[in-house]
Amino acid sequence: MRILLIGATGTIGSEVARALRVDHEVVSAGRTTGDVQVDLSSPESILNMYTQVGSIDAVVSAAGSARFGPLAELSDSDYQFSLRNKLMGQVNLVRIGRQFVNDNGSFTLTSGVLAREPMPGSSAISMVNAGLEGFVRAAQLELERGLRVNVVSPVWVAETLKALGRDSSSGMPAAQVARAYVAAVTGNLRGAVLDVREYI
Amino acid sequence: MRILLIGATGTIGSEVARALRVDHEVVSAGRTTGDVQVDLSSPESILNMYTQVGSIDAVVSAAGSARFGPLAELSDSDYQFSLRNKLMGQVNLVRIGRQFVNDNGSFTLTSGVLAREPMPGSSAISMVNAGLEGFVRAAQLELERGLRVNVVSPVWVAETLKALGRDSSSGMPAAQVARAYVAAVTGNLRGAVLDVREYI
Repeated sequence: MRILLIGATGTIGSEVARALRVDHEVVSAGRTTGDVQVDLSSPESILNMYTQVGSIDAVVSAAGSARFGPLAELSDSDYQFSLRNKLMGQVNLVRIGRQFVNDNGSFTLTSGVLAREPMPGSSAISMVNAGLEGFVRAAQLELERGLRVNVVSPVWVAETLKALGRDSSSGMPAAQVARAYVAAVTGNLRGAVLDVREYI
Repeated sequence: MRILLIGATGTIGSEVARALRVDHEVVSAGRTTGDVQVDLSSPESILNMYTQVGSIDAVVSAAGSARFGPLAELSDSDYQFSLRNKLMGQVNLVRIGRQFVNDNGSFTLTSGVLAREPMPGSSAISMVNAGLEGFVRAAQLELERGLRVNVVSPVWVAETLKALGRDSSSGMPAAQVARAYVAAVTGNLRGAVLDVREYI
């Protein structure tokens, strides 16, 4: 397969790239790095990316930013940023990409455990993660030509915790998280939320 | 209790008003009707509403619009409208209202069955409903002074189906849907999604 991977240099994305490259061709996309550049917050940029990349069999997104912070401190623009990037950015990968992906191809997006298991500070992130999962369940019902869409829900990644100076032993190594992405791309799931803890 | 009800003249809202008025004072809010007017898509309008209404013990929202339509036809602005109204409108009722509601007061919002049980055409609605549920679960963790937030998930309402010219026998009468709102306001639930089918 020829697979477009957005966020290929991120903590999770780099391990997803490594895992997918064993058997497939990976075209990498990032804000400033990769084979092609994309700004997820811009539908025009997404359209431009697909036009540049050409024929693909799968799209994987390990990208999308959202704001973490106290409910009392998150601003209107923090919520708007989160909606525009992690939520609508990935929604638009499907809305725009459905015309570009080959028959029986797939989209694999990224939400996160905070959708269902929130913590103080996660109100905007929990909102966009859960919203993305709701979109995926619904969008699958209207995809044609055998297209599939799924969303991987990572837990805290060990490398991320370490970078934050926190105890990384409670996190999952990114290489293990990547297995759920491979399962979504190579399997037959449709409209599913993949909890990474079920794929290690 | 003195309860602010947004959407008090809607199909569900009018039955929620009727049920709450048995034991409580209801201050009604609507776009063009009610004791006070509010445009949910405007944080300034929400702030203005709370300032006008004064001391309240509970906020109930049976309001918030979102766009239904084929994935291939929903536009960027249809998604933005849905995010701004049904999702951020209700999120902002909590974000702004948390300073106005009395100790141990509550917020009760409205999502819908399409969050978990989508249908063709519901991609935007399923997204905002699920996002709202994610926000509610997370926001509860940071509410102070004993405040509670919950979200009622209605199924198709019989009166709505009838108004659409469809078979109303599969729908739930609005008066039954209203029971979940009363349970959320008068009970002790915190950060919960109330499936109306469990409250008839």
